[in-house]
Amino acid sequence: MSQDQSQSSYCASITADIEAHLKQSITLKPPLSVFEPMYHLVFSAPPNSAPALCVAACELVGGRRSQAIEAASALQLMHAASFTHEHLLLTDRPNSKPMVHHAYGPNIELLIPDAIVPFGCELLARSDDPAQNDSDRVLRVIVEITRAIGSRGIIGAQYQEKVISRSSRGDEANDDDDQWIDYTCRKKEDGLHACAAACGAILGGANEEEIETLRKFGLYVGMIEGYSIRIGRNGKELERVVEELRDLALKELEHLKGRKVEAISSFILGL
Amino acid sequence: MSQDQSQSSYCASITADIEAHLKQSITLKPPLSVFEPMYHLVFSAPPNSAPALCVAACELVGGRRSQAIEAASALQLMHAASFTHEHLLLTDRPNSKPMVHHAYGPNIELLIPDAIVPFGCELLARSDDPAQNDSDRVLRVIVEITRAIGSRGIIGAQYQEKVISRSSRGDEANDDDDQWIDYTCRKKEDGLHACAAACGAILGGANEEEIETLRKFGLYVGMIEGYSIRIGRNGKELERVVEELRDLALKELEHLKGRKVEAISSFILGL
Repeated sequence: MSQDQSQSSYCASITADIEAHLKQSITLKPPLSVFEPMYHLVFSAPPNSAPALCVAACELVGGRRSQAIEAASALQLMHAASFTHEHLLLTDRPNSKPMVHHAYGPNIELLIPDAIVPFGCELLARSDDPAQNDSDRVLRVIVEITRAIGSRGIIGAQYQEKVISRSSRGDEANDDDDQWIDYTCRKKEDGLHACAAACGAILGGANEEEIETLRKFGLYVGMIEGYSIRIGRNGKELERVVEELRDLALKELEHLKGRKVEAISSFILGL
Repeated sequence: MSQDQSQSSYCASITADIEAHLKQSITLKPPLSVFEPMYHLVFSAPPNSAPALCVAACELVGGRRSQAIEAASALQLMHAASFTHEHLLLTDRPNSKPMVHHAYGPNIELLIPDAIVPFGCELLARSDDPAQNDSDRVLRVIVEITRAIGSRGIIGAQYQEKVISRSSRGDEANDDDDQWIDYTCRKKEDGLHACAAACGAILGGANEEEIETLRKFGLYVGMIEGYSIRIGRNGKELERVVEELRDLALKELEHLKGRKVEAISSFILGL
């Protein structure tokens, strides 16, 4: 098996574990009339590597996969909830592009994410293992994740994009506008990935310096993912930007003395 | 000062403290463009006694007001967020009665509550005081509150009301239908009040028996509040139902041996 294959199978194995964990957590509870659409919306959200990055950061600093699996699952839930609300059909939202498929009506696509977010927080709070004496770490991770999805994170970016930018630029605003891409990338993918990597490090028992290094690494991973999804520039320009971000990300990993960084590198080399 | 006045001033003093705490928490943070509507939506939500009940339960079992103020604030945030989303104008929601005033457009009334809920969880998680060694209590309260607002609580009830009941009964369904009142009362006011009283007891250091007694007391307080808001029955019938619920609530308080129950009684005697 080549190094590339081994790296991508590392990501794939984490993603499979998170998915299995989420499937078990979601299907076990009544009422099924709520959990069926919840299940669908969680697993039909576009791929996002933040949850897997959380587990990878935990393992990198010597933690076990199980220590980060609830936080990773919560991140996937928050990502799916915010994606659904971002594309909810509202009377004051002009048709946005790209159009997404709506499996359910607005009523369901409003209320199910409203149930997904507290469920994500519940998963986190329940992940506390008194035997491990890690309550403080879990509480810190709840603060990290709620901030990353809240008014100064993903929702703040959606608000900026859907409310403020439209009112100041008019409804015909071009979503490819570089300025807004920069803003929304920084708050969405970057913020979620930075938070994910920091949370994995916290749960795995990293020291403060390692946590901040992995937060910066996550920031670059998120930027690469964000630019790759949104940017309207030509391929060559994109290639250059991604290359610069990769270099910055790899430089961060150099600070992690004595840690095996090959596995987590796959998040930027595999893209 | 009569006993009635003293009881109602107890509730009022708690409510004022929660409001002051929330005003301080919300206005201190940028971006103001998000926090101004957040502030408005939080304070324009209809009155709900669950947050004050949380503090009263904490004080009843010997805890300090400050130990429950964050949980009470979080409950007020969750109540305001779910109220706003419950009345959000969607294309598949027929005009509901009573119509509520919409200070903002659907875009804002969708996204601000999306930021309010994680902010509520953040307040809770940050309320942990390492010096008090109460992380486990705080985590337990997060689980309690996220469950009370999630798919098996308030949002579950909204889903039942807006999605399931409409599809099975048609859009012309009469909101005064007793069966649905019972269901939504049980999940909304009852659930939030039961949770609030239990959380106050947990944070104040109550034993398990006291926690469950106060949970039941909260359930009756919520039922009284829920019936009083929704029920379409005549005054005499309502009076009888409320009287029965008051008796049940007072019976619960008899289990709390050695506790001064006068203050918390105002939640049912003041109504």
